[in-house]
Amino acid sequence: MIEGLKVVALGGGHGLYASLTALRRVTSELTAVVTVADDGGSSGRLRRELGVLPPGDLRMALAALCGDDDWGRTWSEVVQHRFRSEGDLHGHAVGNLLIVALWERLGDTVAGLDWVGRLLGAHGRVLPMSSVPLDIAAEVELDGEVSTVRGQVACALTPGRVRAISLVPEDPPACPEAVQAVLDADWVVFGPGSWFTSVLPHLKVPQLAEALHSTAARRLVALNLAPQPGETDGFSPQKHLEVLRQHAPSLEVDVVLADTGVAEDAEELAKAAAELGGRLVLAAVADQDGSPRHDAQRLASVLDEIFREKR
Amino acid sequence: MIEGLKVVALGGGHGLYASLTALRRVTSELTAVVTVADDGGSSGRLRRELGVLPPGDLRMALAALCGDDDWGRTWSEVVQHRFRSEGDLHGHAVGNLLIVALWERLGDTVAGLDWVGRLLGAHGRVLPMSSVPLDIAAEVELDGEVSTVRGQVACALTPGRVRAISLVPEDPPACPEAVQAVLDADWVVFGPGSWFTSVLPHLKVPQLAEALHSTAARRLVALNLAPQPGETDGFSPQKHLEVLRQHAPSLEVDVVLADTGVAEDAEELAKAAAELGGRLVLAAVADQDGSPRHDAQRLASVLDEIFREKR
Repeated sequence: MIEGLKVVALGGGHGLYASLTALRRVTSELTAVVTVADDGGSSGRLRRELGVLPPGDLRMALAALCGDDDWGRTWSEVVQHRFRSEGDLHGHAVGNLLIVALWERLGDTVAGLDWVGRLLGAHGRVLPMSSVPLDIAAEVELDGEVSTVRGQVACALTPGRVRAISLVPEDPPACPEAVQAVLDADWVVFGPGSWFTSVLPHLKVPQLAEALHSTAARRLVALNLAPQPGETDGFSPQKHLEVLRQHAPSLEVDVVLADTGVAEDAEELAKAAAELGGRLVLAAVADQDGSPRHDAQRLASVLDEIFREKR
Repeated sequence: MIEGLKVVALGGGHGLYASLTALRRVTSELTAVVTVADDGGSSGRLRRELGVLPPGDLRMALAALCGDDDWGRTWSEVVQHRFRSEGDLHGHAVGNLLIVALWERLGDTVAGLDWVGRLLGAHGRVLPMSSVPLDIAAEVELDGEVSTVRGQVACALTPGRVRAISLVPEDPPACPEAVQAVLDADWVVFGPGSWFTSVLPHLKVPQLAEALHSTAARRLVALNLAPQPGETDGFSPQKHLEVLRQHAPSLEVDVVLADTGVAEDAEELAKAAAELGGRLVLAAVADQDGSPRHDAQRLASVLDEIFREKR
């Protein structure tokens, strides 16, 4: 645990859950900045029915930060609980409903998330990347033809190959507290996570992208442990970095972190990292059971070491 | 505030909310025992969709007991918040969803309610009168014909005159903690509230009725400020006591509390109270704005005085 180290983790979904589960062991000054472009499942339904930000990725990030005691664990379980039925509530996560109720009640997105954070005894703060719901539009190539697919679910399921993403609306307002957190940070961590739909969108919110470029913070990219079917089928680790560079050509990265088992060609990957201005750190951060998941303790140890070197 | 005085309040809905709002000022050892026969609105839908106890009256009782600080008030507002939309969630109270999630998660009705109580910083405990969902069956008279109406909503809306109620199933298991609270109590308070659907049902749960008869606690009946359209149209205060007596012929009552404005014939009402074994207390407990609602502070003062006399 590095006292007072300010870390901002960018992402969404299960990837962000993994990085937060590790980062909470490294610092107590943790902020998650979360994508708000989901249009599927419980989040998608709430977004359509009530016109709110999709709460699911925010909820999952909050649950990852819950307190270690009986109180924090119980409320985290409740917040993550999904109703199962033949009826209207089927599939809704309780935390999504709770977050939306706080938003409706308080009329303030960040205050509502802070209240859920207090409920969970969260070790860190969770913020949306934008204060309005977004859609992802993907440029997709299939059999030599390029078309545009709109919506996170459609992007994840497209049989074509995603080449680039943009946001709808194109110029959404960033969450001011998220921008400030990036500017105040010592380290900013991109990924792991769905590359096109959870990691890159942050670079397409203009004010947030500006802060990510201008911040004095160091930048770390945590690569995924496997390509994601649909989104990044057949993508090498190098290709992930190349796509990042396409979406933010002038962004400098200090460290690229990859699992030893993933980097088949370490030299090529080091070269790709260097092109972003950074160095490659290879470490065993995958779960020992062979699944493409990060081991929280291993990831935490490696991040702790990296953050200490650069202080 | 009378330290250590154990009070059990029986009822449901807005009537119980009123008695709890007053009783929380009188004692810190407060337990609400709540009817679980609702089949309308959000509660009715949850009951049908998920096979759970109807949570609405339990939620409202918990909200009445919420902590006085910003924390308690905010969570109470969230718990009471209802979604408004054109979609599936319309009308659901957030606290109902939260209570049901805790039940599904913990598999324990009382533990789930205790967790919501802790969330709200509740000044007292809320328990269901039975551990299974119930239906109310009402014997209704219309134009000289007697028929049976089933369900709380149907009973409240029947154009006929309710003469008596029973429960379906007839012999539901009581909540053991509720039985124990009645046995341990110094005072048991019936009403105010919907007479047939919120106050009398407790006397029809066999184990609970037995405890209500055998407890060494004093018993107080708080009469309503007005008849309730549908359920008790045209009922005098005396008639309310008469109906109570029909449903529990051997129940002895120590005090009948009525508002001065309600008791048109104080002598007759005193006689009806005496027939139950009790004395009549007349006091100005109604809201000064003329609405048929109890004023929490006035009701609290009168109850405080009554409870002190009898110690």
